[in-house]
Amino acid sequence: MNIDINTENHRIKPNEPIHLNAIPTTIEYDKKLAKEQFKKQSKELTHLQELMYAEAKHAVLIILQAMDAGGKDSTVRHIMTPINPQGCRVLNFKSPSAYELERDYLWRIHQHVPPRGCFSVFNRSHYEDVVTVNVNNLAPKDVWKKRFDHINAFEQLLTDEGTHVLKFFLHISKDYQRDRLQRRLDRTDKHWKFDPSDLVARNHFEDYMDAYSNAFNLCSCNSDAPWYVIPAENRAYRNLAIIKIITDKLASLGMKYPEPKYDVSQYQID
Amino acid sequence: MNIDINTENHRIKPNEPIHLNAIPTTIEYDKKLAKEQFKKQSKELTHLQELMYAEAKHAVLIILQAMDAGGKDSTVRHIMTPINPQGCRVLNFKSPSAYELERDYLWRIHQHVPPRGCFSVFNRSHYEDVVTVNVNNLAPKDVWKKRFDHINAFEQLLTDEGTHVLKFFLHISKDYQRDRLQRRLDRTDKHWKFDPSDLVARNHFEDYMDAYSNAFNLCSCNSDAPWYVIPAENRAYRNLAIIKIITDKLASLGMKYPEPKYDVSQYQID
Repeated sequence: MNIDINTENHRIKPNEPIHLNAIPTTIEYDKKLAKEQFKKQSKELTHLQELMYAEAKHAVLIILQAMDAGGKDSTVRHIMTPINPQGCRVLNFKSPSAYELERDYLWRIHQHVPPRGCFSVFNRSHYEDVVTVNVNNLAPKDVWKKRFDHINAFEQLLTDEGTHVLKFFLHISKDYQRDRLQRRLDRTDKHWKFDPSDLVARNHFEDYMDAYSNAFNLCSCNSDAPWYVIPAENRAYRNLAIIKIITDKLASLGMKYPEPKYDVSQYQID
Repeated sequence: MNIDINTENHRIKPNEPIHLNAIPTTIEYDKKLAKEQFKKQSKELTHLQELMYAEAKHAVLIILQAMDAGGKDSTVRHIMTPINPQGCRVLNFKSPSAYELERDYLWRIHQHVPPRGCFSVFNRSHYEDVVTVNVNNLAPKDVWKKRFDHINAFEQLLTDEGTHVLKFFLHISKDYQRDRLQRRLDRTDKHWKFDPSDLVARNHFEDYMDAYSNAFNLCSCNSDAPWYVIPAENRAYRNLAIIKIITDKLASLGMKYPEPKYDVSQYQID
């Protein structure tokens, strides 16, 4: 038995502007069933990844954005489990270095797009350059407001050339964030993860919701590079929804094992 | 109950030259017990990786070499399973590109050494530049024979600066290789993996054994960058031996969670 999960509900549609405040961060679901279904989807994803690697025609770029403690690291772990690490790279885009800042903000991003047959998972991405930069006034508005067009053009380049872009926002409430951050203070073995700058971002929670909503509305025009807002407080549901979206995408591509480059019947191993 | 596995037996010792022909490719062991023990070691490795990441003092470079069909891909999958992919990169060093060949052979290697706190896994490595290059006469002997000194100096640099280098040769017999390669011809969904050039390398199997033996003897002088020759026809044993060597190394480092950079008692999440 499967959970009847309608991932389309989570997709931001072109010309249907949203605001995150109106989108729930939790969802009713059967946890046990979700975990079972995750395992089935995992097996399918393992198979589809091998097929994609063999065919070497398509590539997949997965982008994860969330507030601090929104579950990005945990999500990476879960969706990577069924994926052969040789066909996937995980990139963490932290604050740009001085060297990176000397170049346009897409320069460091472009270097890590996946080669054909492979996945890249971006933990944070160029969306920081329109969201965090906006909220924290790291660049003037006339600089960052041009960036939505750059990003749309960049993602169009990727999708036109065979890279499928799947963008996920892990949506949590400010209350839920409090509990998760408090855990870092309460557990000695999590102290090293704590950074007072997380609290600064937390003070701007509503500004972030505004800035993210705006970015999603402006950067959902390419149907091959959709944004999904995932209710992320229910972790088993979150993992299932994301893996299902990835698997459905791959399954829709009509991929085939390539014809061997050689007539295998000619060969025998001595 | 644990298998009494003596990983030291597999280590190439400085000043004790070996030849691969004298080293067995199989081993007697209890498969069920090995799989159980692998799970326990996996949990320990997951914990030690987080600790290494938090402390950000040590790094680990894992090098895998083997003949075709020796199990490199499968080994990568197994040892990566317990490892958080955000703290580990897998690199496949295939034939160098024209751009890479314009630089010294360690140039492309050096770029992918792990940052502090992280793992890199090299599927093939700079050892191709002394082994494959030798067997296939891709460079004159007076060029490649100098490389053992470069490699020792390079690995010394890494270990002096905090990167632990663990080098594994997955040892299989020529007969075992025949069965594995034949499988690629017999199974339609494996045809795409078949490459006639594998047969060319197979024709030089004995030359490869000589060249590898020579490389192991010349590049085992640094006790922080040892070579291990793993009997690799018994896959559960192979996985267990390798994960145990990695875990034992990490456990020996006396790592600790770092002191928090901030006085956590000063903070409360509103």
